[in-house]
Amino acid sequence: MINRIHGGNCPEPNIIDFSVNINPLGPPKGLSDIIAKNAGLILHYPDPFSERLKRRLSAFHDIGSENIAIGNGSIELIYLVSRIFKIKKALIVTPTFSEYEYALRLNGSMPGFFNTHEQEHFVIDRAKITRSIPRAGILFLCNPNNPTGSLLHGDEMLHLVRLCKKRGTTLILDEAFIDFTEEARKKAVMSESVKNESLVILRSMTKFFAMPGLRLGYAIGHKRIMERIAEFQYPWNVNGLAQLVGERVLANKDYMHRTRAFIAKERQYMLEGLNNIKGLKVYPPSANFILCRLRAASVRNSKELIGRLLQDGIYIRDCGNFRGLDDTFFRIAVRKRSDNIRLITAFKKVL
Amino acid sequence: MINRIHGGNCPEPNIIDFSVNINPLGPPKGLSDIIAKNAGLILHYPDPFSERLKRRLSAFHDIGSENIAIGNGSIELIYLVSRIFKIKKALIVTPTFSEYEYALRLNGSMPGFFNTHEQEHFVIDRAKITRSIPRAGILFLCNPNNPTGSLLHGDEMLHLVRLCKKRGTTLILDEAFIDFTEEARKKAVMSESVKNESLVILRSMTKFFAMPGLRLGYAIGHKRIMERIAEFQYPWNVNGLAQLVGERVLANKDYMHRTRAFIAKERQYMLEGLNNIKGLKVYPPSANFILCRLRAASVRNSKELIGRLLQDGIYIRDCGNFRGLDDTFFRIAVRKRSDNIRLITAFKKVL
Repeated sequence: MINRIHGGNCPEPNIIDFSVNINPLGPPKGLSDIIAKNAGLILHYPDPFSERLKRRLSAFHDIGSENIAIGNGSIELIYLVSRIFKIKKALIVTPTFSEYEYALRLNGSMPGFFNTHEQEHFVIDRAKITRSIPRAGILFLCNPNNPTGSLLHGDEMLHLVRLCKKRGTTLILDEAFIDFTEEARKKAVMSESVKNESLVILRSMTKFFAMPGLRLGYAIGHKRIMERIAEFQYPWNVNGLAQLVGERVLANKDYMHRTRAFIAKERQYMLEGLNNIKGLKVYPPSANFILCRLRAASVRNSKELIGRLLQDGIYIRDCGNFRGLDDTFFRIAVRKRSDNIRLITAFKKVL
Repeated sequence: MINRIHGGNCPEPNIIDFSVNINPLGPPKGLSDIIAKNAGLILHYPDPFSERLKRRLSAFHDIGSENIAIGNGSIELIYLVSRIFKIKKALIVTPTFSEYEYALRLNGSMPGFFNTHEQEHFVIDRAKITRSIPRAGILFLCNPNNPTGSLLHGDEMLHLVRLCKKRGTTLILDEAFIDFTEEARKKAVMSESVKNESLVILRSMTKFFAMPGLRLGYAIGHKRIMERIAEFQYPWNVNGLAQLVGERVLANKDYMHRTRAFIAKERQYMLEGLNNIKGLKVYPPSANFILCRLRAASVRNSKELIGRLLQDGIYIRDCGNFRGLDDTFFRIAVRKRSDNIRLITAFKKVL
């Protein structure tokens, strides 16, 4: 089996952690208070199938409750969709989150890989993918893609969905980071998923709302697919505090707008800073993280870079274990300005 | 598929809920404070495979960390063991928790049923089960059994494990309620499970510690079986607050002793009270709940009884949907004395 090492293993508490892709603004104001005040919720069983939260999300996205499935983190839904499509032919657009491959193999699929290339900034070549989509299979695509930052916009995505439909293939579209982009405000792709069995969307709530400790994600898609997911879910899969907080944060539209504006500005700031550093190649980001590659003679690989940056109190994500990347790639989360300045300064010193 | 209706759907907030089997003492003192003070944990990803909690449980039970798997509630582990034993031959000792059957069917097994009978107080007949255990299969047994309260003691259990081993069958022993009994203090059965692949034990932490909203359970068994469970688990399956609280409550031995003493006393009190009510048959309880059957001409079935008790502010669990029971059975949780008095009084009035 493939390895299961992920970000977020920040070695010490006083290190600034650029390895996890969490909203740098922190959770919406008052979230800790909500948890403290509702600690009594742990005394009761949660809603076994999160029906209330489904209704809340249904109103938020203006789609039916029956088009939603709630997961104990979006990772639960990655495993479930890999399971319900009893299909051997699967294709993963790489380099990407390693759990798609793991989940598919666990369910007896031997996935193929559609590799995007660093020379092309990891952008999907439309002609090439048209030739590669399997018949009657599934296609895993992360958009915006972790860790490359490559992003397909609405029209391109709808084109891909139509291609998949023609081939009888289902696109599993992991939008774990889409809320950090302006694409989150567009409705065309989501509208397509509720009426079209060729598209299932996965969303995370814990990255954008900075609460990964709580575990919460959801899937959007055709009623029949959501029913199939529910069939395989055990009851009470989502804890009561996650359900409550999930309902509450959706009301905070101001936080959503502020986050997107903040990320856009800081991402640009970091991009300029990193582009000015000799010995680095920076790939065009779209969400709250930036993929880079070492081009310096003075530092051999990301492992060595990580060791040196740690001395300056900074931790970044080694991307050497992503299929399709090598040990010179690493990923940086967009954080607050003061942290970002420290990162750029540390890079200048090391490289 | 079979129905997925469970207890804990108490219709109104001011009703005394005897339908869920939770520790009536409430969670250990200070648990809400721990959650309030550590609400900041939600900002960080949980330990992906709960290694810290495994080590804590390993010390608590004096077994190896490699003999433990942590679940998002013991229900996750019920689904996982039903999945990893790719076996068609399964037997469930009934009447019991409906999710064993659901989980087995989900994984392509058509389970058989070893029925215990009300004339025999739902006690397992040793000669009969000896003849019934399948070869190279799995056997699901809940001990103490929900909802009948029937309990096999250590020696009887070890005998059953030896029988299973001879047949090449694995006993899945759900001990979700064992902490409410004195059997929890004995070590023989657990010792057997870590060295013998014919026995896997499932434990719940949220019933005894009165925190079902948090979701936490674990499995104990042979290293090879625990590795197989881990292979099928998605990372970060247990939320960070559950992990922390799980570690903390294990230190509270005083609470454990007090709970067992309290339950033993109140169970006896309720048993005597219920036995004095004409029109009721009461089955010998062993944990924190009591199974009863209606024998009154004045009330037709449990549904009608529930309706009448609700008028007195009391909610009990209809057991009509348990395989092997009919619509005259119901289950009552053991609660605090004042609640229990109200229950007995209400029963006297209704029957």
